[in-house]
Amino acid sequence: MIIWPTSEAMTRALALAREAAASGEVPVGAVVSFRGRIVGEGCNAPRTDHDPTAHAEIVAIRQAAKAMGSERLVDCELHVTLEPCAMCAGAIVHARIARLYYGASDPKGGAVEHGGRVFDQPQCLHRPEIYSGIGESEAAALLRDFFRERR
Amino acid sequence: MIIWPTSEAMTRALALAREAAASGEVPVGAVVSFRGRIVGEGCNAPRTDHDPTAHAEIVAIRQAAKAMGSERLVDCELHVTLEPCAMCAGAIVHARIARLYYGASDPKGGAVEHGGRVFDQPQCLHRPEIYSGIGESEAAALLRDFFRERR
Repeated sequence: MIIWPTSEAMTRALALAREAAASGEVPVGAVVSFRGRIVGEGCNAPRTDHDPTAHAEIVAIRQAAKAMGSERLVDCELHVTLEPCAMCAGAIVHARIARLYYGASDPKGGAVEHGGRVFDQPQCLHRPEIYSGIGESEAAALLRDFFRERR
Repeated sequence: MIIWPTSEAMTRALALAREAAASGEVPVGAVVSFRGRIVGEGCNAPRTDHDPTAHAEIVAIRQAAKAMGSERLVDCELHVTLEPCAMCAGAIVHARIARLYYGASDPKGGAVEHGGRVFDQPQCLHRPEIYSGIGESEAAALLRDFFRERR
């Protein structure tokens, strides 16, 4: 088994997940980068923002698209601490994200390797390269601790 | 076959779809209503807004959630002129939309009766009541005319 080093972008996404937890939100963080430079980032914030779409990925993608001046994030990478849900996987398709890196897999809400498997549908217009498990143990521990405290 | 009358909300969604077309965007419009009152609406606007997530449903849901002061749009209805994609279907789940009405079905991008079938996944946390085909002929004609002009 290869243990991948946690990249700078995933390290930042994990820090954003911790920020989400500190605000009482499910700890997920995301970073969009272009040629090694962060162009968008986000914490999961639906309660804080009164916005059901404010998942970390959506916040990061929207910020990156504004920064890049285009709705297509061609050649951009997305690092996120948790497997994206159907909403976020769909947004990744629309944004044409080139490479997706995620930490923990999510059997309950994920739609990459679970549920709707958005990128595996024959109708899917764009499939990013996908790398999972990077930063997984830390991402999963953050989520476990968050839900344990709330029980 | 029953021909349903086009509701006031769907009539408004169709008007928003025409607004989208006038801006050079794929003509889709959406309206969120609560007890007969419109609380959010949106035109499809990803190019105009430099926002890949700016589908009509997402714009309408975000506006409604701000208006209602909650990320959960309990007992709200969404009227949209086209079958929602995976991103928008996921947002409908997160927002807990009670009833979804849509016009034209979308074999290429839809994720309600096509592709990822988001609401039919066993993991799906919330399934709205779904009514399709309302305003279908007008919604489909708008899309057909839009793409014909661009060919």
